Amino acid sequence: MSPFAGLSAFPLTPLHDDVVDERAFAGLVERLAAADVDSITALGSTGCAAYLSPIERARVARLAVEHADRTPVFVGISALRTSEVLLHAANAERAGAAGLLLAPMTYQPLTSDDVFEMYQTVTARSGLPVIVYDNPGTTHFAFSPELYGRIAELPGIASIKIPGVPREPDAARAHVAEIRATIPDHVTIGVSGDAFGAAGLAAGCDAWYSVVAGTLPSPAARITRSSQEGAFDAAAAESARLAPLWELFAEFGGSLRVIAAVAEHLGLAPSRCLPLPIRGLDDEQRGRVATVIEELSLGG
Amino acid sequence: MSPFAGLSAFPLTPLHDDVVDERAFAGLVERLAAADVDSITALGSTGCAAYLSPIERARVARLAVEHADRTPVFVGISALRTSEVLLHAANAERAGAAGLLLAPMTYQPLTSDDVFEMYQTVTARSGLPVIVYDNPGTTHFAFSPELYGRIAELPGIASIKIPGVPREPDAARAHVAEIRATIPDHVTIGVSGDAFGAAGLAAGCDAWYSVVAGTLPSPAARITRSSQEGAFDAAAAESARLAPLWELFAEFGGSLRVIAAVAEHLGLAPSRCLPLPIRGLDDEQRGRVATVIEELSLGG
Repeated sequence: MSPFAGLSAFPLTPLHDDVVDERAFAGLVERLAAADVDSITALGSTGCAAYLSPIERARVARLAVEHADRTPVFVGISALRTSEVLLHAANAERAGAAGLLLAPMTYQPLTSDDVFEMYQTVTARSGLPVIVYDNPGTTHFAFSPELYGRIAELPGIASIKIPGVPREPDAARAHVAEIRATIPDHVTIGVSGDAFGAAGLAAGCDAWYSVVAGTLPSPAARITRSSQEGAFDAAAAESARLAPLWELFAEFGGSLRVIAAVAEHLGLAPSRCLPLPIRGLDDEQRGRVATVIEELSLGG
Repeated sequence: MSPFAGLSAFPLTPLHDDVVDERAFAGLVERLAAADVDSITALGSTGCAAYLSPIERARVARLAVEHADRTPVFVGISALRTSEVLLHAANAERAGAAGLLLAPMTYQPLTSDDVFEMYQTVTARSGLPVIVYDNPGTTHFAFSPELYGRIAELPGIASIKIPGVPREPDAARAHVAEIRATIPDHVTIGVSGDAFGAAGLAAGCDAWYSVVAGTLPSPAARITRSSQEGAFDAAAAESARLAPLWELFAEFGGSLRVIAAVAEHLGLAPSRCLPLPIRGLDDEQRGRVATVIEELSLGG
């Protein structure tokens, strides 16, 4: 199996008083390694990479590799400026990363040619395989299937992380098949958007790039293992069981604030662990998160 | 007149081989001071602040003040993380800035409370007046009139930079009046989006925060001075004369790539002066920019 298949868990990078809480981060990574996820992706969107300095990110990459035991670690290298992306890539390589995750972050909107050239530059300069990270909710950049294809042809591209799949199973399969037809065989497709994990794997995705797995690896591992055994109904049932969690993600503006509240509730991260200006959930919202965690028996 | 009124010119921060071209930047600032603009705003969106490191930004702020003669210099301090915003604010203050420009940059979407608290923190910690920078095209954050009002009540808020006005003059006046009704009297309103400069001033805005003025100050100064004398028809006529330039802004995805091509064409910036991954205009597009500059006699 490609290392870019199966379950990749995205841990938070918890802060305490605006400083990375290295002990909490190391604890999250050790928890993931023990849960037998297929890979750990540090410094993704959930890892708040966009908010951290190059020095903080280099340190977090090193900690991730040190505490991941033998689990492969992928490191997010996204930044607004290409030269900073290259700096993060070099630091990740020095840290011992097994792969790189790269989204086209934007302040000024980017063209397809801008984005293609960035991937071309990074793959030419780094020896590590690269995951193309399509996250329009944070980057506001829209990949076309044609651009997936152009980028996936670059030597060094290992995987494409797509933002969910259509709700209807036939449409989901057709969507994944359409992407598959544009990219080389060795490039895997990974679904993200945790509510779509089971559906994405059933639709033919090779990997699930998962936020929830970064804090609650067990249910995500159950969904992934069932899917890998072809037990898609069991995977869908487990995903349906977690619907109250997916609903909180949708209601509270995405997964980050909710998963941070989960980690804080379970004592895996210090309180208010997100970088300001992101204040995180308020007390009433945190209470609802805690209720869902208890009702779904996710605290174990 | 408030220093946050009249014409504020936004210079580029030109790069050469990924390093700030300090001589070109100083030249742009000197050109603006000589053109008698009312203020210079360094490190705005046009100044590519989002792409520069804290060290680069501190240096650019110092250069701007050193080369601006007696023209007040405002400095952009926007960043994704509040602690980095505070660092930029402290560096701008040390550089001798007369004010700060702050947009709610996003990677994760922000709530209104997140954004309010950021302005509260910055105004509490900095002695400098702050311009609230509403630029949804780059930040993807939508201010409401109510949020303008809450933020404008904070001590230290001096101005709100709004993203254009409605096309129809009565609607434009009503829009500016609606904002005016929510904010204290001493807080100015400045229009941006250069195609809206004349219309915004006619609709009651106090200031024009202008991209074009950062490279081509003379026509922007003519529009502003006519407006300040009540000669709104003359201002509108000069703005209409520049319509081919506004059309290039619209066609080529905003003002930045076009104004960079203008500065390069006029020898005010080195070629390919924008930070990668922004490749800037292609040769055919640059040819069209050059034609418009010549036809409008803007090269002087």
